[in-house]
Amino acid sequence: MLIHKEKKFFTLFTEQAENMYKGAKYFNELVTSGKFNEDTLAIMHRIEHEGDAISREVSEMLNRTFITPFDREDIYMLSNNIDNVLDSVDAITKRMGLYKLTQPDHHLKQFSVIIEQASSSIVDAVKLLDNMKHSSRIQAYCSEINRLENMSDHLRDIAIGELFEKNSDPIFIIKWKEIYETAENTVDTCDYVGKTIYSIIVKQA
Amino acid sequence: MLIHKEKKFFTLFTEQAENMYKGAKYFNELVTSGKFNEDTLAIMHRIEHEGDAISREVSEMLNRTFITPFDREDIYMLSNNIDNVLDSVDAITKRMGLYKLTQPDHHLKQFSVIIEQASSSIVDAVKLLDNMKHSSRIQAYCSEINRLENMSDHLRDIAIGELFEKNSDPIFIIKWKEIYETAENTVDTCDYVGKTIYSIIVKQA
Amino acid sequence: MLIHKEKKFFTLFTEQAENMYKGAKYFNELVTSGKFNEDTLAIMHRIEHEGDAISREVSEMLNRTFITPFDREDIYMLSNNIDNVLDSVDAITKRMGLYKLTQPDHHLKQFSVIIEQASSSIVDAVKLLDNMKHSSRIQAYCSEINRLENMSDHLRDIAIGELFEKNSDPIFIIKWKEIYETAENTVDTCDYVGKTIYSIIVKQA
Repeated sequence: MLIHKEKKFFTLFTEQAENMYKGAKYFNELVTSGKFNEDTLAIMHRIEHEGDAISREVSEMLNRTFITPFDREDIYMLSNNIDNVLDSVDAITKRMGLYKLTQPDHHLKQFSVIIEQASSSIVDAVKLLDNMKHSSRIQAYCSEINRLENMSDHLRDIAIGELFEKNSDPIFIIKWKEIYETAENTVDTCDYVGKTIYSIIVKQA
Repeated sequence: MLIHKEKKFFTLFTEQAENMYKGAKYFNELVTSGKFNEDTLAIMHRIEHEGDAISREVSEMLNRTFITPFDREDIYMLSNNIDNVLDSVDAITKRMGLYKLTQPDHHLKQFSVIIEQASSSIVDAVKLLDNMKHSSRIQAYCSEINRLENMSDHLRDIAIGELFEKNSDPIFIIKWKEIYETAENTVDTCDYVGKTIYSIIVKQA
Repeated sequence: MLIHKEKKFFTLFTEQAENMYKGAKYFNELVTSGKFNEDTLAIMHRIEHEGDAISREVSEMLNRTFITPFDREDIYMLSNNIDNVLDSVDAITKRMGLYKLTQPDHHLKQFSVIIEQASSSIVDAVKLLDNMKHSSRIQAYCSEINRLENMSDHLRDIAIGELFEKNSDPIFIIKWKEIYETAENTVDTCDYVGKTIYSIIVKQA
């Protein structure tokens, strides 16, 4: 049986993952509507801020708690990495606004779907972390995230290849190249969360 | 009471942090004067080299020492991360020279002030690390570094937004975009030092 | 005496390092011939895929094995980092194809030689890891990798400096700047493997 304080960590991880998923889902909506403006950027920023608050709560819990469900560093790392995904989603949203790119293309749409899916798998995995008898299901989610990361790698190559082939305006190329790369990087960060979760399972084994 | 060899680690950390601060301070001076030339690049490189030497000394101490004040990996990581800050300051200095950018703008000036401040907080935090009763003061420095990192994030967005709005020369944009991003990255690296220090405190708690 | 299962880890590390070296060697050949085309990209991708398979085998071994030759996280990290080097070599190869750059220049040639040398030193170091009495020889390989990393840093500065001086086409500059940076980053990743190996030795000391 987990003691009360240990449970609290899992509650916080789940909250943090769900908040990150909220950001990913909202980003996907923005890519569909193309509405990257001051108002929507502020909403995304609020979600990101909420993530920071949960992250801080995890840190404070660590300070006050003697017995933790896994290694202190792993708790810190997991929380940090989930936060990085949300930061990355917020960063790409801000960059779309900054570059005044109001017409997301089909490549970015594919990226935003992948990011939402990977975030959803993170939520699923994190929710099972409180019981190591779920380790094979958790591993399956980590594999799924890794599969999405491979897809996103491939997608970035196609997107950037087309970008250089079909355009001659270097400033347009600079902007979109960065957007595609940041999108791909977001999925990498999801995969990094997956690897952190996987390494926690390995240690508990 | 700390034994002699343990004290030596703290002496080295302090030396390393102070040398890094020296680099950050010198960079701030160069941004004020705009004198990014062969001579000043060589001075910065000498400071960076001195940092490498201290970093190597920490590694060698680790090899010769059985009992260490914290986990061997954390000592290695802290020393490595402080070194990364200085490397980053050296990198941006070299890039200014390479791109023949002799007219630093007010955005870069703001970055260089932030980098100097964050480096100064790292020195302050490192100096207290030898006594865990200072942990709340150390945490305050880590928070301050994190606050500066948030500022620098914001500053980069403004600087890059203006860069694209006010210029049409793509080569000019490529150069300055990289300078701003490297500057912001330097502050990120400072924040990473802060997070390493914080995680050491958490473990000792 | 190492037990059978522990030996298996060292066999896998060696296989993984040798496969990575194979990729580095092939990249060097491609840079000489300039033949970055569909066929050669597919060959490189096959090598990268083989690396993924070995990486997965290491993870599975970790799951099934109770006693490991070093910390579970270090095994995981070492395997991961070797994989990152190969990924990086594959990435630059794909990018050459994507950007239709069929005329590698002398700077890229120098990078590819350095990458092959650093990879070769990784193989040498990994082969000695099964016996800590080799620790000083292992450290010498780590130092050699670090020396190559410094060379590659310098090379990137020269290459990028010349790129901006001798060209006025921003799209050409964007492409080659990224190639040089990815090449330099590959050597950084080699150095990171070296640092991981070094930290394993430090812990065992």
